Amino acid sequence: MNQTKHLPPEADLDLLNSFIRDVPDFPKPGIVFKDITPLCADAKAFRHFIELMATHYKPLAPDLIVAVDARGFVFGGPLAYELGTGVVLVRKKGKLPADTIQAEYDLEYGSATLEMHLNAIKPGQKVVIIDDLLATGGTVEATINLCRQQGAEILGCAFLVELGFLHGREKLGDLPIFCPITVE
Amino acid sequence: MNQTKHLPPEADLDLLNSFIRDVPDFPKPGIVFKDITPLCADAKAFRHFIELMATHYKPLAPDLIVAVDARGFVFGGPLAYELGTGVVLVRKKGKLPADTIQAEYDLEYGSATLEMHLNAIKPGQKVVIIDDLLATGGTVEATINLCRQQGAEILGCAFLVELGFLHGREKLGDLPIFCPITVE
Repeated sequence: MNQTKHLPPEADLDLLNSFIRDVPDFPKPGIVFKDITPLCADAKAFRHFIELMATHYKPLAPDLIVAVDARGFVFGGPLAYELGTGVVLVRKKGKLPADTIQAEYDLEYGSATLEMHLNAIKPGQKVVIIDDLLATGGTVEATINLCRQQGAEILGCAFLVELGFLHGREKLGDLPIFCPITVE
Repeated sequence: MNQTKHLPPEADLDLLNSFIRDVPDFPKPGIVFKDITPLCADAKAFRHFIELMATHYKPLAPDLIVAVDARGFVFGGPLAYELGTGVVLVRKKGKLPADTIQAEYDLEYGSATLEMHLNAIKPGQKVVIIDDLLATGGTVEATINLCRQQGAEILGCAFLVELGFLHGREKLGDLPIFCPITVE
């Protein structure tokens, strides 16, 4: 694993790395899944990741955190709490009860749809998007689309782990990425 | 809506109630869905709910927060962060990558399965279970089952909203419930 530039000096990447578990052959043979649940379960590592993000984004003064279903919720909730903002939920199709806007993204075979409640973001509000993992970038690209449909100003996208070999960051254009751990 | 006893004097139930939205006919005709996403999106109401829970549970010194897929993650993450614990994820079947334990629960037609990673809780660890809503109690009953399979000591269960008319609390036995909003 490699480290992203621009991390603060207090970043303890060994701590974070030590709680990310490789699970071979999930969700199918040949894939090595990066399991972030041990990091969530460790008080020190969990807090460290949230504090790193909060330190990074606090000077940018976001109005809202936009968290992606479902592991993004675990990190987006505390980031919003620490920064004193609310958190908007981006969910898989059919989960949000009120009127929604939609964005599709490509899967290996076919496509899927993400939703956000209509008017969840006011035009001009500054948001940070958060998910646990940047892989092919399909879900974050759809989330960016949803934010822009509502007129949001996207300050950046945060992840715990980036799978660099999948080149997902190419889908983010010029948006800044905060991600302490990159798997090359 | 009614209030649960034993809430601290600083509890502002009007604030919390004002950000819970009734969505008629979701997920199907005749059901009035209690949508908690506006509360998540409001910085003040979101923080207030987390602080109420943290104030309540801090003296009990939980070792871990157990959060239920998926809206439970949004509240479980910040509660764990504020209390200085980790958070264990309970997920729908097939989402957790490593070895799991399972518990079934009844749906209106048929049943569903919740999972927790094997050894996510060590025997004797004190946990608080959190989800957004207590309805029929099926998911929390399964979550209690998962925690007990791992030998956890369950300090209590927290929700934002209880649908009292569904009598879900009968499934919790003697476990203490923390829930600021009850819909009778």
